[in-house]
Amino acid sequence: MDRSAAPAVERGVHMAAEVAEQPAVLARLLAEGTAPIADAARLVAERSPRFVLLAARGTSDHAALYAKYLVEVRLGLPAGLVSPSTMTVYGTRPDFRDVLMIAVSQSGGSPDLLGSLTAARECGATTVAVTNAADSELARAADAHIDVLAGTEKAVAATKSYTAELLALLLLVEGIRIDGKDASETARQLPELAQEALSHPDAVAEAAARYRFAQRIVTTARGFSYPTAREAALKLMETSYLSAQPFSGADLLHGPMAMVDETVPVVAVLSHGEGGRAMQPVLERLAHARADVLRVGGPVPAPPDGSPAQHLPVPNVPDHLQPVLDVLPLQQLALRLALDRGSDPDAPRGLSKITRTL
Amino acid sequence: MDRSAAPAVERGVHMAAEVAEQPAVLARLLAEGTAPIADAARLVAERSPRFVLLAARGTSDHAALYAKYLVEVRLGLPAGLVSPSTMTVYGTRPDFRDVLMIAVSQSGGSPDLLGSLTAARECGATTVAVTNAADSELARAADAHIDVLAGTEKAVAATKSYTAELLALLLLVEGIRIDGKDASETARQLPELAQEALSHPDAVAEAAARYRFAQRIVTTARGFSYPTAREAALKLMETSYLSAQPFSGADLLHGPMAMVDETVPVVAVLSHGEGGRAMQPVLERLAHARADVLRVGGPVPAPPDGSPAQHLPVPNVPDHLQPVLDVLPLQQLALRLALDRGSDPDAPRGLSKITRTL
Repeated sequence: MDRSAAPAVERGVHMAAEVAEQPAVLARLLAEGTAPIADAARLVAERSPRFVLLAARGTSDHAALYAKYLVEVRLGLPAGLVSPSTMTVYGTRPDFRDVLMIAVSQSGGSPDLLGSLTAARECGATTVAVTNAADSELARAADAHIDVLAGTEKAVAATKSYTAELLALLLLVEGIRIDGKDASETARQLPELAQEALSHPDAVAEAAARYRFAQRIVTTARGFSYPTAREAALKLMETSYLSAQPFSGADLLHGPMAMVDETVPVVAVLSHGEGGRAMQPVLERLAHARADVLRVGGPVPAPPDGSPAQHLPVPNVPDHLQPVLDVLPLQQLALRLALDRGSDPDAPRGLSKITRTL
Repeated sequence: MDRSAAPAVERGVHMAAEVAEQPAVLARLLAEGTAPIADAARLVAERSPRFVLLAARGTSDHAALYAKYLVEVRLGLPAGLVSPSTMTVYGTRPDFRDVLMIAVSQSGGSPDLLGSLTAARECGATTVAVTNAADSELARAADAHIDVLAGTEKAVAATKSYTAELLALLLLVEGIRIDGKDASETARQLPELAQEALSHPDAVAEAAARYRFAQRIVTTARGFSYPTAREAALKLMETSYLSAQPFSGADLLHGPMAMVDETVPVVAVLSHGEGGRAMQPVLERLAHARADVLRVGGPVPAPPDGSPAQHLPVPNVPDHLQPVLDVLPLQQLALRLALDRGSDPDAPRGLSKITRTL
């Protein structure tokens, strides 16, 4: 296992630059990318879909999960995540009339997503591709394409393409909600707030120091921030090789709670709104299990018995906007922890940038 | 952490009995439970839903995931897993006309499922509850109720209720497929084959011995057996407190692969058909990473360099039937490992039989 082939000075430079670049990436998407999003929203609004399917893999699957919450809560439509294997492995050709399928992929290069989207379009679905690659096959195969304009992503661990996907999906769904009009007003403050969310390096370094020798970690959230818990776990796994397990707060109480004790740190992502409030019973159970809990977002916790509060602050926004922000300090944490542990987050062992699953 | 409060002689007796009872439970459901299933299938067929939503938590969520594959592949309808929080935390009231919602719950006692199903029915969905509790609120709230007739489940770790839920969902979906007629013929051999799947205690004991001191484990599969990978991971977590992570074979290649090496054992669930074949590239990548792989199901692997093949056999059935069988040796493995590690699978710490999340 050659975890340190690159000179120490160079490890993680791409990931660090891409994490820091996110406020600018979000601002660019808002400045230059909204017209195609409004076009796509208008097309979808005209077709009036009754059910929405999301197709994605890896990090983009967490953006898709965020979109699922947006569709359910903001559009009031039932939604599901596609299991690509049903079409690509079992060859199913479902009845997809009145279905909107949104495929999300940084590279636009995953053959199983292309297969799913193409099959869905043939079966009657309206299809939208959200990618960071306008000239990709996936972009061409869809009825509408949204370019997230994140620029080339050099680190294998995706960061800026993820938050750009989140913002693009937010603008798409909000645009559908208002019949295809420009919804960028909703999100205008996000670049500045993203900068603020990235401005707590000391809190990040402290959390990384505490996790330096951890083998396992649990992440948890409810509602809109659940995708953040999933994405944070993936980032920690792929950059620091620790065993990170994400659970919805509700699911955590159904079984996995048994393996949480003083030796397994827990990262709880808390919105300032409904999702954070729904986490209160989970936080109580975690306290009862004497778990070590790092709170990300939500109000500043009262420091227990004088020890410093474990908290990564995230600006207070409505729940449906928070995922664009609350993942940011967790990306910083994954980066920092990887560097502390001697691995290279730009090029994790065993991974390549485009994963070609059929 | 009081992991051994019960006398050693009694630990796991309930789980052991319930695991062993499963062939009889499946036979009873086929003998006595098919009329209400055919009624429910007929009701659903009459309503001709166009989308299917599944709602469940914990172990039953894996049964719901199995049903999602059945609906997509066998019925050719788009399907999604409900995020209960969208209705219970965010108060959404979506447009659910032409939607079939199937809620799956052993106890029928989870308030968030009851809330989701009730809201869905009010919003126009046809609702079916699949439970092991005919007198539960969930059973009463649905348009149709299917009792899986598994009998009282005393161990907190669910086993027989899970396979009974799988069989009930199989019969429901196959029944809808043939317009509400009795579909039990499809499944008639399953009780006998389940007995066969449970008949390899030596292979199970050997696998448990190898995992005795493991802290982490990865489970993986594609297609219909993916729910088995998830359920096996949950069983291992809740009974043996190890950190077990399930991945679809395709997702494993997108990131988590980085944390797999010689020190993290992998359980690969392989069907004899399409799903198992789609796992071949994943097995190749795992071999490349020199991972330790236990194969569950699929053809008997060629023993590498003379060492004994790590394999838990599962009878050869079509992919869409295999989940009823391939979880069985994995339940035995979780039980055995829990006993070897000194915990009590009948009463894992931190858990109770009915989890009340809102």
